[in-house]
Amino acid sequence: MNIEERIGTLRKLMQEWGWYAAVTVGEDPHNSEYTPSRWHQRNFISGFTGDAGVVVVTPDHAGLWVDSRYHIQAANELKDSCVTLHRMVSVEDCEWMDWLAERIPSGGVIGVDGLCMSLQDAARLQSLIEYRNGRVVSRADYLETIWQDRPTLPQGKVWLHEEQYSGRSTTDKLKWMRGVLREHGCSYALVSCLDQIGWLLNIRSSDVDYCPFVISFAIVTPEGVELFAGTEKFSSDIAEALAQDGIHIHPYGDVSGFISSMKPSGRIMIDPATLNYELGKAVEKSFSGTGIVRMDSPVDIAKAVKNDVEIAGFRKAYVLDGIAQTRFFHWLEDEMAAGRQVSEADASDRLHELRAGFPDFLDESFETASAYQQNAALPHYCTIRGKDAMLRPCGVYLNDSGAHYRFGTTDITRTVPLGPMTRLEREDYTIDLKGMIDLSMAVFPVGTPGCRIDAICRNPLWQTMRNFGHGTGHGVGNVLSVHEGPQSIRQNLRNIPMKPGMITSNEPGIYREGMHGIRHENMILCVPAGENEFGSWLRFETLTLTYFDTAPILRELLDEAEIRWLNDFNASVYEKISPHLDRYDADWLYSKTRPI
Amino acid sequence: MNIEERIGTLRKLMQEWGWYAAVTVGEDPHNSEYTPSRWHQRNFISGFTGDAGVVVVTPDHAGLWVDSRYHIQAANELKDSCVTLHRMVSVEDCEWMDWLAERIPSGGVIGVDGLCMSLQDAARLQSLIEYRNGRVVSRADYLETIWQDRPTLPQGKVWLHEEQYSGRSTTDKLKWMRGVLREHGCSYALVSCLDQIGWLLNIRSSDVDYCPFVISFAIVTPEGVELFAGTEKFSSDIAEALAQDGIHIHPYGDVSGFISSMKPSGRIMIDPATLNYELGKAVEKSFSGTGIVRMDSPVDIAKAVKNDVEIAGFRKAYVLDGIAQTRFFHWLEDEMAAGRQVSEADASDRLHELRAGFPDFLDESFETASAYQQNAALPHYCTIRGKDAMLRPCGVYLNDSGAHYRFGTTDITRTVPLGPMTRLEREDYTIDLKGMIDLSMAVFPVGTPGCRIDAICRNPLWQTMRNFGHGTGHGVGNVLSVHEGPQSIRQNLRNIPMKPGMITSNEPGIYREGMHGIRHENMILCVPAGENEFGSWLRFETLTLTYFDTAPILRELLDEAEIRWLNDFNASVYEKISPHLDRYDADWLYSKTRPI
Repeated sequence: MNIEERIGTLRKLMQEWGWYAAVTVGEDPHNSEYTPSRWHQRNFISGFTGDAGVVVVTPDHAGLWVDSRYHIQAANELKDSCVTLHRMVSVEDCEWMDWLAERIPSGGVIGVDGLCMSLQDAARLQSLIEYRNGRVVSRADYLETIWQDRPTLPQGKVWLHEEQYSGRSTTDKLKWMRGVLREHGCSYALVSCLDQIGWLLNIRSSDVDYCPFVISFAIVTPEGVELFAGTEKFSSDIAEALAQDGIHIHPYGDVSGFISSMKPSGRIMIDPATLNYELGKAVEKSFSGTGIVRMDSPVDIAKAVKNDVEIAGFRKAYVLDGIAQTRFFHWLEDEMAAGRQVSEADASDRLHELRAGFPDFLDESFETASAYQQNAALPHYCTIRGKDAMLRPCGVYLNDSGAHYRFGTTDITRTVPLGPMTRLEREDYTIDLKGMIDLSMAVFPVGTPGCRIDAICRNPLWQTMRNFGHGTGHGVGNVLSVHEGPQSIRQNLRNIPMKPGMITSNEPGIYREGMHGIRHENMILCVPAGENEFGSWLRFETLTLTYFDTAPILRELLDEAEIRWLNDFNASVYEKISPHLDRYDADWLYSKTRPI
Repeated sequence: MNIEERIGTLRKLMQEWGWYAAVTVGEDPHNSEYTPSRWHQRNFISGFTGDAGVVVVTPDHAGLWVDSRYHIQAANELKDSCVTLHRMVSVEDCEWMDWLAERIPSGGVIGVDGLCMSLQDAARLQSLIEYRNGRVVSRADYLETIWQDRPTLPQGKVWLHEEQYSGRSTTDKLKWMRGVLREHGCSYALVSCLDQIGWLLNIRSSDVDYCPFVISFAIVTPEGVELFAGTEKFSSDIAEALAQDGIHIHPYGDVSGFISSMKPSGRIMIDPATLNYELGKAVEKSFSGTGIVRMDSPVDIAKAVKNDVEIAGFRKAYVLDGIAQTRFFHWLEDEMAAGRQVSEADASDRLHELRAGFPDFLDESFETASAYQQNAALPHYCTIRGKDAMLRPCGVYLNDSGAHYRFGTTDITRTVPLGPMTRLEREDYTIDLKGMIDLSMAVFPVGTPGCRIDAICRNPLWQTMRNFGHGTGHGVGNVLSVHEGPQSIRQNLRNIPMKPGMITSNEPGIYREGMHGIRHENMILCVPAGENEFGSWLRFETLTLTYFDTAPILRELLDEAEIRWLNDFNASVYEKISPHLDRYDADWLYSKTRPI
């Protein structure tokens, strides 16, 4: 079946079910950003392959809503399709909900897959259609009837993220968690986010590409943890180790039934922003007598603040990345100079090889964007062999990639010149770097959320009427998801203060469709900056150890402090990376890191 | 009765009423910032004279919660008092509610004056004490029993803010308002904020010091407007003029009874953030059948976006202010040079005289802060003759003042040297100016709220670990309140986008208790800055036309763009103000505005 046929079949089912609209949010039951193929429902019904977007099908319209990261990609993928592209201005405004709320007929039903939509989003949608007596109705896995060869649940083996890397035992984390529950008058917590379960129980697996999560739900009880993950994924050694902390393993599909049959002796804590609608309803039934506390998950913030062992691990990871990337960019420069044929995919493979050579390398932390010139103008470009471009000795090459090492996770973007660059390319390169440096140098009061310092990065871009549609910075998990919250540095207002120990990306970009794209990305660690009569202060320490190419820089666009930062940064890269390089690479790095 | 006796009497009443705590928010029934003395309840019960703060009395504690603007002032005023000072970190976090929620006994009652607390705040307090089965109970004017000589309602005469100044007739505004109501499926609106009523009906009076509001409530109906303001305040001419727009005048106290007796034929729009709890309950009763739409008042945003007539009026007002201030600071410099005795109050009076000399002068727009050195470290210092300091020919003098002219309202702060300044004073002066200039030069995308550009102003301060506890910018009403919303440029996250036509202050400060205070304040008009492939852009145009003294500036702390902005600004002040000055003042202004 092609997309048109799938949507046609869905419309017939909608008629049968009495739905005015069918919504595919494209989430999995765990509110994950990256989902196993089993939950690639958005892709199945629309053909769009991006990682975020909402599909709405009504009797006379099929639409895909995506934010600016995906505007160009979606326009390409939906060309000649029966699905209309809706370009969202903001990620969080849920413009598709407003669209539906305007059009729903009186008493109309909007169908959703309640496993794959959060309690909070379902409630928001319901409140918007209330005025026309509309109703949100859930039907779990409603696309399954059409989707005959739907992939099954992944069955990755579970391994432990040992205390030497996590810095904190499962016993200790569970003790902390029960303390938090007590503080809020709770006896139970339902944890449904995969990165939170991975952090809390120090477990990992290969269920999800790039994100070593164990697909599961966890219920923390006064005595132990009920973990719904599938028993066959655990070796007897690991199951035994987990049992020491009172962790009982159940089949994945049993969670809903387990909750429904609970006879709770106290309140349960849930996070309505991430818990799916179906499980949320089960909790509401079982805990109606004892009570439900709805709040942001305390695991999320605890996970985001890295401990000393984790920070040391990240530092080691960035040394490895710095070594691999120096070798990679040196190799690339040599290839270009020799006039050899290198495609985007060749370059990506080469960097992969260099990283994979380290014994502590586990996997890449996300799909590499290896992008030449106009491809780099797509902020989330995916390099696919056969469809990829050849690199040429002019303009810019952008590489956004990362790795999971045993002790930490990396995410780095460098944009490098492959030869002569235009004035505009050099301006974009320099102004984007200026924004990144200004955020790197930021000092700000304790309590400041990331959305309030975002403008420090964007201001140099704004001054010349440049901007980018994505966020400036996201948290990074420790061998979990390369994108994690709750902190972020971005446009959307969210009152999550930056805290010492948080590791966040710093990645402004400037994209010109059909021409070129620039992005510079470092990882920055929030650290205390002292106290004085005006309060307590925080600043950032940059963890990334890959040089910035200074050749494209228009020096007059940077001020003295920015130039000093850049020279100091490149000097420290040379100091920390060159001892691990052979003479040939070290000399080259020396030339690349000379002060400007 | 002194404060201790008042609190003692209140505690006896609390026992009688069964209250665990009595809360005095210190608002009036209209959620005003500046309230007539009748509603100075906070002052009556605590002795604190500041404009914001909450008093909580329990059987064993009496506390005043104030934000950082008032920390120093409150500490002075509460010295040796039985009222404990609680220093709030944030204005909007309602820390006093958390304090109460932690302490309230099971089933405890918190008493409030429901006329003087918003529906929203009452609901928030109720939700926080729910977990202990606590209850918020309202008793209108509960302090009246203790407060024997409580001031009566002001009886200022009403005058019209004519169309030549407002730029928009009452007829047109009411037509617009009914269109908005229709859009939201409403037939009625209850407007309770005084500035909104003043704007909507183009009426003014002298009820409230500095804010020419008419103390009133307005109900917009399908046919007209029911205005509860007291009939005796309106001349027959004005009553007749208002009657042409269907405005019927009622006694002020009749509003609650009127609402209770309404037989509505459609829904009513209210703003729960500003409507008081008592009227809110009346509305809930009368409109339970037809429906209530709770939303931010549409009048608030319409009022904030000034039309062309208003903008032209503001420009004229800033010319007058520039003339008066040039003459004032020249006079002050002469007095200092001649070694004459000038007190803070003398200076304030002199500036008042100079402004009052203009035929279009109506009143001051707020109480002038005329503050020397350590007094300037109090961001909201009030100059009281007899308690005021003498100016001396060294250090800094800060003047924060403003006026209502027929066509516009001003608010300006200048800090000027009276003689030699220390290195630290000059650093604070320059760095504060740098922040103000950076915000003046800001360019930002359409849709950006003020809280996202606040850091552009603060960043130069933060870089040297300086900061200030108040907001950076507030809206200014047109012959209404000098502080108005909904837009602001400040720490607190609020998603109100800046729009062309909004006039906002730009006033960073640096305060060192016991030493000195610096604040530079201009008014900035939001204007379009063009469109390009990255979107649509906004910037600011500075309206204020009073020079900045360049003598204290440490030039090396400013960059070239900032110096250019400053020189251009001073040059334009000379160009626009000098034609209105005599030769003696003009020559002096020329010397003050020479480029650095």
